[in-house]
Amino acid sequence: MTAKTAPVLPPELAEQAAVLAAGTEQILPAGGLEEKLLLAREEGRPLRVKLGIDPSADELHIGNAVVLRKLRQFQDYGHLAVLIVGDFTGQVGDPTGKSATRKQLSREQTAANSATYVEQLMCILDRDRVEIRRNADWLGPMTLADVVRETSVLTVAQLLERDDFANRFAARQAISLTELLYPFLQGYDSYAIDADIELGGTDQTYNNLVGRNIQRAHGKAPQVVLTLPLLEGLDGVEKMSKSLGNYVAITEPAAEQFGKLMSIPDALVARYATLATDLTPDEIAELAARASAGGPAAGAAKRAVAAAVVRLYHGADAARAAEARFDATFRNRELPTDVPDAALPAGDPVHLPAVLTAAGLVASTSEARRQLRAGAVKIDGARIGDGALDLPRAELAGKVLQVGKRKAARLVG
Amino acid sequence: MTAKTAPVLPPELAEQAAVLAAGTEQILPAGGLEEKLLLAREEGRPLRVKLGIDPSADELHIGNAVVLRKLRQFQDYGHLAVLIVGDFTGQVGDPTGKSATRKQLSREQTAANSATYVEQLMCILDRDRVEIRRNADWLGPMTLADVVRETSVLTVAQLLERDDFANRFAARQAISLTELLYPFLQGYDSYAIDADIELGGTDQTYNNLVGRNIQRAHGKAPQVVLTLPLLEGLDGVEKMSKSLGNYVAITEPAAEQFGKLMSIPDALVARYATLATDLTPDEIAELAARASAGGPAAGAAKRAVAAAVVRLYHGADAARAAEARFDATFRNRELPTDVPDAALPAGDPVHLPAVLTAAGLVASTSEARRQLRAGAVKIDGARIGDGALDLPRAELAGKVLQVGKRKAARLVG
Repeated sequence: MTAKTAPVLPPELAEQAAVLAAGTEQILPAGGLEEKLLLAREEGRPLRVKLGIDPSADELHIGNAVVLRKLRQFQDYGHLAVLIVGDFTGQVGDPTGKSATRKQLSREQTAANSATYVEQLMCILDRDRVEIRRNADWLGPMTLADVVRETSVLTVAQLLERDDFANRFAARQAISLTELLYPFLQGYDSYAIDADIELGGTDQTYNNLVGRNIQRAHGKAPQVVLTLPLLEGLDGVEKMSKSLGNYVAITEPAAEQFGKLMSIPDALVARYATLATDLTPDEIAELAARASAGGPAAGAAKRAVAAAVVRLYHGADAARAAEARFDATFRNRELPTDVPDAALPAGDPVHLPAVLTAAGLVASTSEARRQLRAGAVKIDGARIGDGALDLPRAELAGKVLQVGKRKAARLVG
Repeated sequence: MTAKTAPVLPPELAEQAAVLAAGTEQILPAGGLEEKLLLAREEGRPLRVKLGIDPSADELHIGNAVVLRKLRQFQDYGHLAVLIVGDFTGQVGDPTGKSATRKQLSREQTAANSATYVEQLMCILDRDRVEIRRNADWLGPMTLADVVRETSVLTVAQLLERDDFANRFAARQAISLTELLYPFLQGYDSYAIDADIELGGTDQTYNNLVGRNIQRAHGKAPQVVLTLPLLEGLDGVEKMSKSLGNYVAITEPAAEQFGKLMSIPDALVARYATLATDLTPDEIAELAARASAGGPAAGAAKRAVAAAVVRLYHGADAARAAEARFDATFRNRELPTDVPDAALPAGDPVHLPAVLTAAGLVASTSEARRQLRAGAVKIDGARIGDGALDLPRAELAGKVLQVGKRKAARLVG
């Protein structure tokens, strides 16, 4: 894939290309997006923009929405979203049995799951410009002989370039031969549905490039790959994911969304503004500046971002109501709304006296134990009993820890 | 695979184990052969001893015979030879198109080839204790879903341990995903035919160990792998192979076999005695000593080995006749029978004046050209014309190059 100069486009296509490229992490190969837009114009047809969706997922979150909102932009320009339901791999399951997040599903479960999930996608996508395809339709009938032929265009070195494989290979962790086959399966999907463009998170870059090899091997024009950044979860560390519980679902009630979004670390305010809202670049820049100032300014910026996200899924009125309810709840609990961040010490579970000391809320672990015995310690306004000295990390991350009425800190990390 | 102490065997099984282990390069795992022999005794059944055969091969040579003669020993103890005709891979062909030696074959070609080849195998094997299986019978119906499930027990690191893969991976040469699947296919064969033991050359060690993983994954007892050394070809460098032309076919006439065997370098005499004859260890040791003495002693040792090989396939009378004919031919051509070895210079084709000079048969390249013009240069007794200054390496290697009647050298390398 050599870097190329993008072709010169007529003004209306140039604008389209600029909007579609905005916010992407990478476009591979360079100039490819412009070429595909020209091609669609010349052939008088919409581009076929592929997105693979996971049939084991049941609840769409604002992290998933990043790529979906990009796909919606393509639809708004008249292009076609081709959603691939990965029901083949869903049925085979994860034969290594090592991944807790990928369980073997029956064809019925897969179909039921994906129906609910696809319905949620339509909160973001334009359902009139969607084609839904199931990869068991072409992967199911494939024989070993086909596999042997098709995989000849992929090299092991190429496959091991993928970041997670490269790291695991270098660390001498086991990679099963099956795992090496998965990128082939995804790549074959691109050939099967004649993809012009494939969208995905940056963790899918490699898989999506494999599609180019398979298409080329069949004499087809290779797809262009657009990657979108991955949104960090509420904890600010891991990527947002259902299995880690650090997510905001797009179908959650407005108030819950607002409350969860107010728990993100200050450092993520600009990131969420960029990836999870429709705020303009100028508005994002201003919020980013306020977030990095810290203190009450950062708190106000976070509030603006939370409202912008909620507005996207529930409308402006619901967003305002959610904000009001948030304030009322916090006032009733006498919980300070603008509190400094404090780092949550490492380990899981974490030792509460250590957390209180590290956050500077008490002078010593013996004072911490005293305050706990006295019932003066609260998490998000709820009193903690005497016995609870070690708490699961998940019960503390993002919460406000309070000693008495005056001292409080938001636990981060 | 941990090294284990072999179980203690009753005397008759201990003798069987000693004979079967003799001449093997490796037995994996250690003690495994003894365990299988005991098992067969306990269950009152023959062992199933697997050997994969290549359906693209058409002429069996004495290099192939090394492992076949070991298989025959198993048969002589009452065990069953299970021959796997690789017609599945034969039909798929080598999709990389890089290997000139593995062409895509039709099912008919494959069947015809393997019938002829199997017939030749019966020159060495006992046809009453052979089961012939075609792997297209179980690999043909296999689906992608099966492949995904079955390959989960194999790790990439394991597969890349195979010598040729490891070298190519380190040298950044392309290894296709298909090639990584081949060991899986061979391994699956072992499960499909319930192999107790698999025989193979040392170049097959890794492939044959894969069978253990697949059998274990299906709850079967894993096979024991016996590897046999690879016999070098007549050139003394590459392993003996049809495609390199450096072979002695087992069905060749006795005289041709004898002549070819007399062309091996002195350094290979002991090796051929060990791997290609039924001479006793004492006889082999004596011939090895004579070969390393060089000169006429080495020539005589080579003659004894050649006669022993020919005897194996054509009987004692034919071997004696072949030797007599060889001597007569050489006398008629006035070719010296005991000539020193000379190294054939690198390159292909090789420049004859350079060869003559390097071998010390002429003083200078200009003398070489003069002798060639005069018609005084012969190869294996045949005069070389004036025009032929550059000759293919294969036409010179192992041959006697002669200038006039007195000066001669055998070209080696």
